[in-house]
Amino acid sequence: MGIMLEQQLQEIIHQDIPLTRAMGLKVKEITADSVSLMAPIEQNVNHQHTAFGGSLFSLAVLSGWCLLLTQLESKGLDGNIVIQDSEIKYLLPVSGDIVAHCQITNSNQLNRFFKMYQRKGMARIRLEVKIMMDEAVAVQFSGNYVVNS
Amino acid sequence: MGIMLEQQLQEIIHQDIPLTRAMGLKVKEITADSVSLMAPIEQNVNHQHTAFGGSLFSLAVLSGWCLLLTQLESKGLDGNIVIQDSEIKYLLPVSGDIVAHCQITNSNQLNRFFKMYQRKGMARIRLEVKIMMDEAVAVQFSGNYVVNS
Repeated sequence: MGIMLEQQLQEIIHQDIPLTRAMGLKVKEITADSVSLMAPIEQNVNHQHTAFGGSLFSLAVLSGWCLLLTQLESKGLDGNIVIQDSEIKYLLPVSGDIVAHCQITNSNQLNRFFKMYQRKGMARIRLEVKIMMDEAVAVQFSGNYVVNS
Repeated sequence: MGIMLEQQLQEIIHQDIPLTRAMGLKVKEITADSVSLMAPIEQNVNHQHTAFGGSLFSLAVLSGWCLLLTQLESKGLDGNIVIQDSEIKYLLPVSGDIVAHCQITNSNQLNRFFKMYQRKGMARIRLEVKIMMDEAVAVQFSGNYVVNS
C-alpha cells in the first residue's frame, strides 16, 4: 500500500463534506507521517479581514481526520473516523492563506493506536494540529479522534 | 437601546463572514439573554450524513460572538469581539438541522464583564453554547471571548 495522493484525498473530502468546496480547501501535501491542508483567505475571511475562527477550526479538525485516513489506507485498513472532543487556541490572527499541518510526532503512539484498532475494532488517538503565520504558531489545535471498524 | 433584530444580525454575519452564506446560517431567535443560530443539515453534511464537526463548531462559536454583539448593542456600546480559545465536545451526532443556543446563565458574570469593559476598554468572558438533538445535548462548547474597544 502506498501513500494516498493529494488529488485523491481532496476529491474524497470535497465529496464527503461539501462545505469544504465553499472553503476552497486543497490538500497541500501528504507525507508518510503528515498531512497539510490549505484554504485561501478570501473564502474564509471574517469581520477583521483575517481568517474566520470557524474556518481555522475546520481546517485543523480535517487535517487530523485526513492524517488518520491516510494512515489507515497505507496499512490497507478501513475505518470510520470521528472527532470526539477538541481544544483550540487562537494565538495570532491569520491574515494570509490558511495552512494547517498535522504531524505524527510519536510513532509509538501511532503503533499503540493500530494495535488497539486491530485487536478491538475501535481505538482512540490524540492528534495535534498547527496553523503557522510567518514563522510563528497562530493556531494550536488538539483533538481526540475515535476510529471504528 | 432595544434588542437587535434577527434579520439585522443575520445580514451583519453574512456580510462579515461570507462562509456563513454557504452554510445557510440563519439567526433563529434573539432574546434579552440569548441567541439561537440555525443552519440546515444539507449544506453542512459530512461523510456519515450527519453534521460536519467544523460546521457545528462554527455555529457554536458564532452564537457566542452574536450574543456579545447583541449585548454590547443593547447597552449602546461598540467593540471588537474575538475568540481566544475554546473547547468542544461532540456527544451525539446531529442528524437534522443544526440549532446552536448561547444563553447568559449568570447575570453577575455579564455585569462584571461590562464593568471591566467600560473601565479598561478590554474584557474577557467565558460563554457556553449547546447544540441539542431531540431532547439531549449533542454538542457542548465553551469559549473565552475578548472584547476590545
